[in-house]
Amino acid sequence: MITVLFAAPALWAEYQTHLPQALVEAGVSARVVTEAAPEEVDYIVYAPGVALQDFTPFVRTKAVLNLWAGVERIVGNRTLTQPLCRMVDPGLTEGMVEWVVGHTLRHHLGMDRHIVNPGRVWDPTCPPLARERPVAMLGMGALGSACAAALRGLNFPVTGWSRTEKPGSLHGEDGLRRALSGAAIVVTLLPRTPETENLLNAERLALLPQGAVILNPGRGPLIDDAALLQALDAGRVGHATLDVFRTEPLPPDHPFWAHPRVTVTPHIAADTRAVTSARVIAENVRRGEAGEPFLHLVDRARGY
Amino acid sequence: MITVLFAAPALWAEYQTHLPQALVEAGVSARVVTEAAPEEVDYIVYAPGVALQDFTPFVRTKAVLNLWAGVERIVGNRTLTQPLCRMVDPGLTEGMVEWVVGHTLRHHLGMDRHIVNPGRVWDPTCPPLARERPVAMLGMGALGSACAAALRGLNFPVTGWSRTEKPGSLHGEDGLRRALSGAAIVVTLLPRTPETENLLNAERLALLPQGAVILNPGRGPLIDDAALLQALDAGRVGHATLDVFRTEPLPPDHPFWAHPRVTVTPHIAADTRAVTSARVIAENVRRGEAGEPFLHLVDRARGY
Repeated sequence: MITVLFAAPALWAEYQTHLPQALVEAGVSARVVTEAAPEEVDYIVYAPGVALQDFTPFVRTKAVLNLWAGVERIVGNRTLTQPLCRMVDPGLTEGMVEWVVGHTLRHHLGMDRHIVNPGRVWDPTCPPLARERPVAMLGMGALGSACAAALRGLNFPVTGWSRTEKPGSLHGEDGLRRALSGAAIVVTLLPRTPETENLLNAERLALLPQGAVILNPGRGPLIDDAALLQALDAGRVGHATLDVFRTEPLPPDHPFWAHPRVTVTPHIAADTRAVTSARVIAENVRRGEAGEPFLHLVDRARGY
Repeated sequence: MITVLFAAPALWAEYQTHLPQALVEAGVSARVVTEAAPEEVDYIVYAPGVALQDFTPFVRTKAVLNLWAGVERIVGNRTLTQPLCRMVDPGLTEGMVEWVVGHTLRHHLGMDRHIVNPGRVWDPTCPPLARERPVAMLGMGALGSACAAALRGLNFPVTGWSRTEKPGSLHGEDGLRRALSGAAIVVTLLPRTPETENLLNAERLALLPQGAVILNPGRGPLIDDAALLQALDAGRVGHATLDVFRTEPLPPDHPFWAHPRVTVTPHIAADTRAVTSARVIAENVRRGEAGEPFLHLVDRARGY
């Protein structure tokens, strides 16, 4: 019997039935505990920000299995020498696709002027079709690819851009310039790394066509906040719908709240769902026990 | 050389290049005119509401080709004995799918409380996944089927209901009760006929689960306005987003404008697009000349 330490107490209520059940379904004989002597722990189920920060005493632990897609707050921990896996949760991906497709269609259809229409304006001008509304997807990992596929299914012409070379996507600085200069809607779905910080800075925002819309369900620091506010004030960026911020909850006095061209959503685009993510954790425990390669293993050099 | 009378003057600017070009591409030798002696006209391109109402003198006309999907204002014209074809325009279908998927996702994600959030409320409760949000599609013709397919592609469980029996859809009064009683979101996409008038009346609205959302991009008379307002006031219906109305433009004093649970969109869900619909017209002219059956021929008994 192996021991799985569930080290994210705040999430225990959600996982205490789903995780043992998923392990049984994966054919793994394991006990799931919230406390254990470190030297007895085979696997750690983890979430950034919890009390456990020193992984040194976990001498037999075969893997640290993160419950979130983002690992930026843990990947630099020097005591963490065990294999570290990110969460790629089908439920999380579905939620992200729904948020991205929903807000893309909201801006595409110009919904806001119908949702708030105190003047009772009846203007029957139809929006263009999705096939005439180019979207740039910055980040073509599991989440970005799924969003791009869903948007293409609705006929949006999607240009993908990736930091690393990927088939069918643009990459590099030239590729980024091309993606931005042709985009009516830009979605930022990159992991947070030193290389992606302020990816959308003043210079790159200036490449966008007049009135382009930005959707950021990725990470707050992907965008230079001050440069974005300037571009919004100048009308170069027509609207920004932001789900992630440098400080969360977004402080009440932050200018994003009051800006007429900004919509704040409260970090809801993607959430790990216990039912589906418990199965991913269980599958990785099964793989570890069978000596098979882990799913979603983090590359420490890349940072995700 | 055959003669095509374009009898919708207000749309001529949009079609005057697209339609002759589409006829050439279809291999048909035709002149397209806005005026002609009735006895010389082979085909009439038509839109409801135009001056031409007496089809009696068009003795050699082989078909009346409507530019719109809805034919309720013309199907009862007793002088119209020529074959009548509806428009099923791929561009119109695409626009409809975008409106229906967009507003379904808007309600699914609860966007309105983020778009208008004067209290700067940060509530990071995630919405359920689309797979947990059942949708009823009332009407499974060309438009309803396309919307159902797109919603299913995003994991929404869609129950289709059709007036006539169709594979994979519910039908009949029992089927309608089942569709309504399980729906979180109801989309009404039926043609306007005497049988569909007030389809959503007080009795049927009472079958909906508490807080269900209604989207009507079909026809205004599908819903009993007074019953809907009562159901909205009672909270049984959580929100109604309506694109079509008994009187358009919706009069400024209509209670829908002021109701906090109603969103009015100005009949923009589906519009015929000249580029794509000109090809449908040209294909039907080609079929008429080749003696092949017309596309989208209206059944006078059914009314569409």
